[in-house]
Amino acid sequence: MSLEFKNASESFTIMNELVLPNDTNTLNNLMGGRLLHWMDIAAAISAQKHSNNLVVTASVDNVSFKQAIKLGDVITISAKVTRAFTTSMEVRLEVWTENIPTGVKAKSNEAYYTFVALDSDGKVTKVPELIPETEEEKHLFSSALRRRQLRLILAGKMKPNDATELKALFSDED
Amino acid sequence: MSLEFKNASESFTIMNELVLPNDTNTLNNLMGGRLLHWMDIAAAISAQKHSNNLVVTASVDNVSFKQAIKLGDVITISAKVTRAFTTSMEVRLEVWTENIPTGVKAKSNEAYYTFVALDSDGKVTKVPELIPETEEEKHLFSSALRRRQLRLILAGKMKPNDATELKALFSDED
Amino acid sequence: MSLEFKNASESFTIMNELVLPNDTNTLNNLMGGRLLHWMDIAAAISAQKHSNNLVVTASVDNVSFKQAIKLGDVITISAKVTRAFTTSMEVRLEVWTENIPTGVKAKSNEAYYTFVALDSDGKVTKVPELIPETEEEKHLFSSALRRRQLRLILAGKMKPNDATELKALFSDED
Amino acid sequence: MSLEFKNASESFTIMNELVLPNDTNTLNNLMGGRLLHWMDIAAAISAQKHSNNLVVTASVDNVSFKQAIKLGDVITISAKVTRAFTTSMEVRLEVWTENIPTGVKAKSNEAYYTFVALDSDGKVTKVPELIPETEEEKHLFSSALRRRQLRLILAGKMKPNDATELKALFSDED
Amino acid sequence: MSLEFKNASESFTIMNELVLPNDTNTLNNLMGGRLLHWMDIAAAISAQKHSNNLVVTASVDNVSFKQAIKLGDVITISAKVTRAFTTSMEVRLEVWTENIPTGVKAKSNEAYYTFVALDSDGKVTKVPELIPETEEEKHLFSSALRRRQLRLILAGKMKPNDATELKALFSDED
Amino acid sequence: MSLEFKNASESFTIMNELVLPNDTNTLNNLMGGRLLHWMDIAAAISAQKHSNNLVVTASVDNVSFKQAIKLGDVITISAKVTRAFTTSMEVRLEVWTENIPTGVKAKSNEAYYTFVALDSDGKVTKVPELIPETEEEKHLFSSALRRRQLRLILAGKMKPNDATELKALFSDED
Repeated sequence: MSLEFKNASESFTIMNELVLPNDTNTLNNLMGGRLLHWMDIAAAISAQKHSNNLVVTASVDNVSFKQAIKLGDVITISAKVTRAFTTSMEVRLEVWTENIPTGVKAKSNEAYYTFVALDSDGKVTKVPELIPETEEEKHLFSSALRRRQLRLILAGKMKPNDATELKALFSDED
Repeated sequence: MSLEFKNASESFTIMNELVLPNDTNTLNNLMGGRLLHWMDIAAAISAQKHSNNLVVTASVDNVSFKQAIKLGDVITISAKVTRAFTTSMEVRLEVWTENIPTGVKAKSNEAYYTFVALDSDGKVTKVPELIPETEEEKHLFSSALRRRQLRLILAGKMKPNDATELKALFSDED
Repeated sequence: MSLEFKNASESFTIMNELVLPNDTNTLNNLMGGRLLHWMDIAAAISAQKHSNNLVVTASVDNVSFKQAIKLGDVITISAKVTRAFTTSMEVRLEVWTENIPTGVKAKSNEAYYTFVALDSDGKVTKVPELIPETEEEKHLFSSALRRRQLRLILAGKMKPNDATELKALFSDED
Repeated sequence: MSLEFKNASESFTIMNELVLPNDTNTLNNLMGGRLLHWMDIAAAISAQKHSNNLVVTASVDNVSFKQAIKLGDVITISAKVTRAFTTSMEVRLEVWTENIPTGVKAKSNEAYYTFVALDSDGKVTKVPELIPETEEEKHLFSSALRRRQLRLILAGKMKPNDATELKALFSDED
Repeated sequence: MSLEFKNASESFTIMNELVLPNDTNTLNNLMGGRLLHWMDIAAAISAQKHSNNLVVTASVDNVSFKQAIKLGDVITISAKVTRAFTTSMEVRLEVWTENIPTGVKAKSNEAYYTFVALDSDGKVTKVPELIPETEEEKHLFSSALRRRQLRLILAGKMKPNDATELKALFSDED
Repeated sequence: MSLEFKNASESFTIMNELVLPNDTNTLNNLMGGRLLHWMDIAAAISAQKHSNNLVVTASVDNVSFKQAIKLGDVITISAKVTRAFTTSMEVRLEVWTENIPTGVKAKSNEAYYTFVALDSDGKVTKVPELIPETEEEKHLFSSALRRRQLRLILAGKMKPNDATELKALFSDED
């Protein structure tokens, strides 16, 4: 079933969730861990669509939570693969939160999750290359290298001095 | 109830969880998002112990998942506050996974979550200063500044050039 | 916040879910009740978007389950309001199911849920009129009357002889 | 294990549930989808008792929700098979809701779910015939044909003109 | 709403549950704690029916688990109040488990839970006296005193020498 | 993997949980059955650590719930094996509850659960002997015989007259 190339748009995934009582703390604010869990499911579906295989989470990049999300809010999570490496994929997520009665809608998070593809025996397997089409997809495809170097450094798998792409992060942040 | 100073050890928290079917994908591997959710709860309890207040997740740093965690494994998450800032706290987590019948136990993750303290009206409030006692606590207390600068840069709230502490990350990684 | 008229497209909602072990019976088939629950949440979000108010489910029309949905499948539910009555809305749902490794994707269900809008005191309240724009939206807007008569008859609130629109169901089914 | 004939009463099933916070919306009303999920489980148990086999939901008929069910209410769902066809069964459900402190108890729903029996390989399999005994059971056994024709029409599997039994629905509704 | 006397039969409650994957360990056996949880809900509903008030669990007596209950089994829990004391009630539970395809049905547990009634401010409140009617109800009503003394001794609230009724336990066990 | 002897301390397990809305009744008190469920998981992990095998719950001793535990409280459950019999283990649990903002912490329960060890085919299997080291461990090791006799009597497997150890319960309660 797998192809050698796939467009970024083929992995596009949207998930809506309603913030229920068990998702919140005693101030009726959504707990961050619950949102991270939903984001992981949305991102995994996106990575499955690109790879046509099972996937496991390899890493999640720094995520910051800007404002309180309240009980009863509607969460919209969109996910799309930004770049495929040999057996892994980076997925970009946007999280929007909407309070229906007041009509207030705001972007609450952006994040990057990475996934590794597995075949039906649970062995790591190759994924199709990703072809970016829009300007935004091309920009995210290109900056994926920098984010990958930062991940490798933070995981202790690359020395900062070897991270030639990452230096761009310190002068040309997107 | 809040004191002006508290020891790091007072926030120490341990959580054990059993990996159940609904926590896994069809290969019987624990889904990353489920682990992030448990880590958030453990870290929130730790930050509550330090601040004696309600807390909300402000950010989670880069987390990498090194190996598959299987259905039936026992997860042990330990959490301890490393440093308090005016109204926020950084919590360090270690995750161990153990397969009981084979006796195989391995560290699967380390991570940093940050939390903001809230009073009973949901307003941001001050937290006690943290006093590190052991060598390891002192080391983590000191390196917390670097991690904080990286968070601020990644959240677009600080320019890389102003991150004087962070430069140490590129020469003296812990 | 509420307007007097809203387009059908403003209520469009998409939800993706992953079929997990607890959603299935011992043959690893998705239980019908779990799908009905997800459909209700997706439809409620759609009706909230149209009404900018809280909503409660008033009825669900006949739903048939054509084929087994398996553990690990990705469910995609789309929902859109077809017509607004004074205080209620009819929402049409389409459910697609996709087995990622085999790439097999199929429509598994269509259904209609109706909701009543409530204000913040829990009292029934008026909703904006719906304006259909596309050909399909206009067709669904028009046939909504027939479906409403069938609901009223099945709930014992209308005599079959008074259901002038419904007679079309027996000669011109869509 | 399966017999050729079974009495309706052998499939009788009662389920009680307590409405918990996660089952409700922000007005503390039970969400309709949650109730549909519980009804499916009760009906599936009833159909399993009749068929002594695994079952999957084939359809749910029109369900209307007459009044709000509140947080803390006790739900009582009773289920009984009304008629068996070659490989399928129709189950009738009654839902009662009770507010314990006020002692208010009311019938909130009636519904029909149908199930198909599967053997241990997941293949469709025959079910015992149902023998109605009481007057009510006989009435429901007889009217099951009409409801079945309506289902077939609504699923697009029968032309309205061929639904000879259904015409009774328009003159002799029960 | 509360009466001064109520019959035992008015508190009779039946709950059916299906053993799902998340309720089992990796051998597909129901976890004991999950069953204790279901039993608590069934018993609480029964005690609420007797007292027409909210209730909290005060104690659970020794429960033994005789045989493995498997994934897919149907659990039937019946509960009935055996005796009311001033503000508390003892509830007797019977648990039956049924494997539908094989038709094997067996009693798996008997247990006693006790509950205290609370008014809407959360204060302990009086409950109606219980009137036993059948022979079995009278026997359980009478032996409730012995079980209560054992509970008080095990909780350190009564000295064994004062437990005049309990001595019967050592000669006339029911 | 199994050894012939293991120290009590090797089975020590700590679990922290946060009381969430779905764990509570409408007075915001933790439901007893939910706590019994968490205790079962903590005790099972402890018994798995001692036996290096899968385990199933064999019994839970009398548990009393002394005070209301509230929504938002932090629960700390500690578990340790007190004594191993041929194929079973007794686990002692302590439950502490802490209200973080007020700093009030109290012991809420003590309990004993017993487990049977199973091999990977689900057959009952032998467990290592337990060696108590501290004074408290030795005391619990010794009193385990009495508690076992009480369990056997309550389960109808031993006549009270044969319970020579249990008589100590009536004169020398721990």
